[in-house]
Amino acid sequence: MTGLGTETGRVYLIGAGPGDPKLLTLRAAEALAASDVVVYDYLVNPEVLIHTRRDAELIYAGKRAGEESLSQSAINLLLIEHANRGRVVARLKGGDPFIFGRGGEEAEALVEAGVRWEVIPGISSGVAAAAYAGIPLTHRGYASSVAFITGREADGNSSTGVDLRAAAHADTLVIFMCGGTIARIASELIAIGRPASTPIAIIRWGTYQHQEVFSGALEDIACDADSPVELKIKPPAIAIVGDVVSLQEKLRWFGEESLRHSLPGSAGVSPAPHGVLV
Amino acid sequence: MTGLGTETGRVYLIGAGPGDPKLLTLRAAEALAASDVVVYDYLVNPEVLIHTRRDAELIYAGKRAGEESLSQSAINLLLIEHANRGRVVARLKGGDPFIFGRGGEEAEALVEAGVRWEVIPGISSGVAAAAYAGIPLTHRGYASSVAFITGREADGNSSTGVDLRAAAHADTLVIFMCGGTIARIASELIAIGRPASTPIAIIRWGTYQHQEVFSGALEDIACDADSPVELKIKPPAIAIVGDVVSLQEKLRWFGEESLRHSLPGSAGVSPAPHGVLV
Repeated sequence: MTGLGTETGRVYLIGAGPGDPKLLTLRAAEALAASDVVVYDYLVNPEVLIHTRRDAELIYAGKRAGEESLSQSAINLLLIEHANRGRVVARLKGGDPFIFGRGGEEAEALVEAGVRWEVIPGISSGVAAAAYAGIPLTHRGYASSVAFITGREADGNSSTGVDLRAAAHADTLVIFMCGGTIARIASELIAIGRPASTPIAIIRWGTYQHQEVFSGALEDIACDADSPVELKIKPPAIAIVGDVVSLQEKLRWFGEESLRHSLPGSAGVSPAPHGVLV
Repeated sequence: MTGLGTETGRVYLIGAGPGDPKLLTLRAAEALAASDVVVYDYLVNPEVLIHTRRDAELIYAGKRAGEESLSQSAINLLLIEHANRGRVVARLKGGDPFIFGRGGEEAEALVEAGVRWEVIPGISSGVAAAAYAGIPLTHRGYASSVAFITGREADGNSSTGVDLRAAAHADTLVIFMCGGTIARIASELIAIGRPASTPIAIIRWGTYQHQEVFSGALEDIACDADSPVELKIKPPAIAIVGDVVSLQEKLRWFGEESLRHSLPGSAGVSPAPHGVLV
């Protein structure tokens, strides 16, 4: 990234990291400061925009779950057009652009249009949410493998759907965007052979001051598509499954006590905590 | 991290990220600047130490593959003793502390000793090496799951050994610390059912200017423990396995052409490239 800002017409695909705006990289902050145009998603903490220039054009691209302010192809076009007009463009995405960020698709579009680009990795939201909840994703004697999957399309059999089976047996599972599907995913994991007692933590707004953690076991929430009652968690939510989850009892260091809940099926819980839609 | 540096006696477990020193987070830079003592590993780029104070005590903890300048228990003691003397201690590790970084073990030791601590996630070396090689770890139509494993103990059946089977079927596999074992891992992956033609890229010194990438298919390097000849790659090396690896043909944007090699078994290659010990 030598000559940042001295050459024109290029796109930086930037990972903004998770909620904590201090988890932005130095390189991302530099690229933002050099950019004429910044296209950012819903899951980017707006505090990150403090690194942009006063005269930069800021464009909100949406992508809130269920909503899509700008379609993917509209975003691609936007990046290409601004770069072709000689502008330095920052494409700012939550987490890491190449882990469930569709950054690869945008890179392909830029390559096809002949636009100069580079990628600036970000702290993955799943990694950071676990760390702030006191959960090491790998840990001697607990987990020597970790898999990342998405819960978004786990209910369908479409070609873009998640094949849980492929990754379900990694020691630790990190399930992105799982608020609406986590109960069925839990059920499926048990059906595939994960013990029903496997610990799970569901983390909302990971690394934000208002980070919320729901803890229990797969069996506490498991239900299939026919169940009359299904636990859903409001997005943004990421789940961690595996024995390492139990380490949070010892290693939690961040977040408010009042925002730590047991999952509905767990012993000692009766009222549905805030954020749980049953 | 309010009051950074105004309170004494604490440890920051910090991920220094991969080689590119600009991939350090703002939070890590702040914590380094507030630290009286900095304990850093071999895989931390020394350029990151520019953020430390002039009067900070810098302690090299080693951990080069095969060597261990300080044992894990000695490191734990060091952190605890300095914190107990009221010092702010930065424990700086390559990549992310909670992904094959043994950060969880150090956190446990700190908790047991009653030392205040927090973790500052870093860009995982596997994620960054892939990004700088032009490989999105997930990509629509190519990969909707990615698993991280370590190649360090894949040759043993010890309780800390890697169970390849658990994660081998994730669409994308990222294999950390695999220089000495990648040939046998490739063989095992084929035995488990991954097609022999599955693309693999082995990345040395990922994100450094001298990043080196070896590309081919599993069958190009697969060999078992009895093979008279075995490909080994000098550390530090990380491998990416899966269809997404083929995207680098289109998406590579970083690194020197002269440092991109085909693996020995690939068509058109005869001399063993630099860095390969056959």
